[in-house]
Amino acid sequence: MALKRLGEFGLISRIRARLKYRSGQTILGMGDDCAAYKPAPGKCQIVTTDTLTEDVHFKKNLIPPERLGYKALAVNISDIAAMGGTPRLALLTLGISAESSLPYLNKLIDGFLDACAQFKVELVGGDTVSSPKSLFISVTLIGEAPKNRLFTRHGAQPGNGVFVTGSLGNSALGLKLLAKKKPAWKGSPKDVKFLIDAHFSPVPRLMESKALSRSTAKITSMLDLSDGLAGDLTHICQAGEVGARLWEDRLPRSPAFINICAANKLSSAELILSGGEDYELLFTSPLKDAKKIPGLFKKAGSPVSQIGEITARPGKIVLVGNNGRETIVSPSQGFDHFKS
Amino acid sequence: MALKRLGEFGLISRIRARLKYRSGQTILGMGDDCAAYKPAPGKCQIVTTDTLTEDVHFKKNLIPPERLGYKALAVNISDIAAMGGTPRLALLTLGISAESSLPYLNKLIDGFLDACAQFKVELVGGDTVSSPKSLFISVTLIGEAPKNRLFTRHGAQPGNGVFVTGSLGNSALGLKLLAKKKPAWKGSPKDVKFLIDAHFSPVPRLMESKALSRSTAKITSMLDLSDGLAGDLTHICQAGEVGARLWEDRLPRSPAFINICAANKLSSAELILSGGEDYELLFTSPLKDAKKIPGLFKKAGSPVSQIGEITARPGKIVLVGNNGRETIVSPSQGFDHFKS
Repeated sequence: MALKRLGEFGLISRIRARLKYRSGQTILGMGDDCAAYKPAPGKCQIVTTDTLTEDVHFKKNLIPPERLGYKALAVNISDIAAMGGTPRLALLTLGISAESSLPYLNKLIDGFLDACAQFKVELVGGDTVSSPKSLFISVTLIGEAPKNRLFTRHGAQPGNGVFVTGSLGNSALGLKLLAKKKPAWKGSPKDVKFLIDAHFSPVPRLMESKALSRSTAKITSMLDLSDGLAGDLTHICQAGEVGARLWEDRLPRSPAFINICAANKLSSAELILSGGEDYELLFTSPLKDAKKIPGLFKKAGSPVSQIGEITARPGKIVLVGNNGRETIVSPSQGFDHFKS
Repeated sequence: MALKRLGEFGLISRIRARLKYRSGQTILGMGDDCAAYKPAPGKCQIVTTDTLTEDVHFKKNLIPPERLGYKALAVNISDIAAMGGTPRLALLTLGISAESSLPYLNKLIDGFLDACAQFKVELVGGDTVSSPKSLFISVTLIGEAPKNRLFTRHGAQPGNGVFVTGSLGNSALGLKLLAKKKPAWKGSPKDVKFLIDAHFSPVPRLMESKALSRSTAKITSMLDLSDGLAGDLTHICQAGEVGARLWEDRLPRSPAFINICAANKLSSAELILSGGEDYELLFTSPLKDAKKIPGLFKKAGSPVSQIGEITARPGKIVLVGNNGRETIVSPSQGFDHFKS
């Protein structure tokens, strides 16, 4: 059965019937011209939007629809986490063809709504529009953050440590594995699955962000890694008018990433610098606070690594290789939607 | 020059440089993972999102880019007006091709930012994504409304009057005039221009909505007309479990609309019922309050008409024709993105 038999308002009714999480803040949810809600007192409101487009952010034949629905929310939650915030309400815009199969759409919507329940986000509205040539999913996410503890990109200082959660490059390598036609990559199926899962199901670092927000550690800048370490660290350096030095041997890699890179002779530093879609937190902190950080993350159960330091040379990012040699990292190693 | 030479971050910088209106509520505007703002105390927050997609909502060769940018904001403001709210902050997502011409994009963005300045809305964020096959513009608009005076679709009562601002069908007829190839329509160029302008540049009824919000008139339901009178009145009837009777001779028509319909033998009732994109307010009010309403709108300088009444027969909408005969209005005369 195709969407055109159900119609726009039928689809919206289906989505409403499948809602699993409701927020106490909502005055008026889906189905009117606007949603209405009470903001939490004493906090500031934060808002972000991220869109996934077919053949750019995903290939429809590669990512299962449930995972696509999950990911559309997760990448937005990652932006809320990057500010030290808590996600609350979502709007979902689907650009879909009238020929779309309903089972496909149901799975996509279920994946999105399951993610909403998992992260305690209420879907309060959105738009469903015809997009005959390619599918897109646009999510706006509203959350809140403490007024005096808002993590931004601005404020990195020379001498600060550069930290990152988790391990890097898994998603980028997972995408490579997915995209390449046979002959298949070398490596164990378990490693391959781990990397592809990292690409399909990024886990936004909400708990880690909360741990930082509640701590007394000074966090001078923070963002989430979506465009690759080179591009995103460039954003922090530009905002703070500083530079950075990274140590190749400190870049955190998962065992699966190490195994698959080695078996296929891939440059792991290149994948980490330019790969993107890690959705890990990248942040800077004075070295005197650095010792507090591993303890904070032990509670959240996730690794954190110091991968470098902020320097006084505006815009200049260097990588100290395993051989001790320094190479300049170009911001263009990060992802740009339009530059060719 | 094409977008691919400027790149994503170059485009974002251009947009930032062209911002004309800043809100006192904003803590952190464009350029970080999230925007942050202080909600107005004592009000509820309202949020809406609407997307315009190429070849569905607009033809790129028909609508000038400045008008497209204006319209992308205006249709969202209309949703805020429909709740009795005030728009405050916007997010803009552009789905564009790397081959897009920069002069075109600049005009589109200027149209959007001019509209932001006109309606006192600050652009605080968004997303720019590659969409090689078709252009789309998605706007999320955040505003506020009095907690105890939120106009919703629910609550129309039998015996209530059905009211509408302005005149209907202009935009739908304007679109018809635009779409049709030569031989051209009959009618004066002035009338044609008026109708095409109504299609390109809808004026959201913010002032009228504020006048209603501040008044003591009881408004039992309200929405903005975007899908055509038949479809939108059906939403009010379904939400209130009521029906409605409309009087054909009371449907407000502009002189240009009357002239062009007559010259080309078009059914004006059909255009009004199924046309869409009027962006007028449709609301219901007890008849004892009805006499207050024209006075309220005189201040706002815009016409208002009682076009019918709410009846007790759920879902049944009838049109009393000029000849006195009743015909049933089908909700499917309204616009649905997917039904064929």
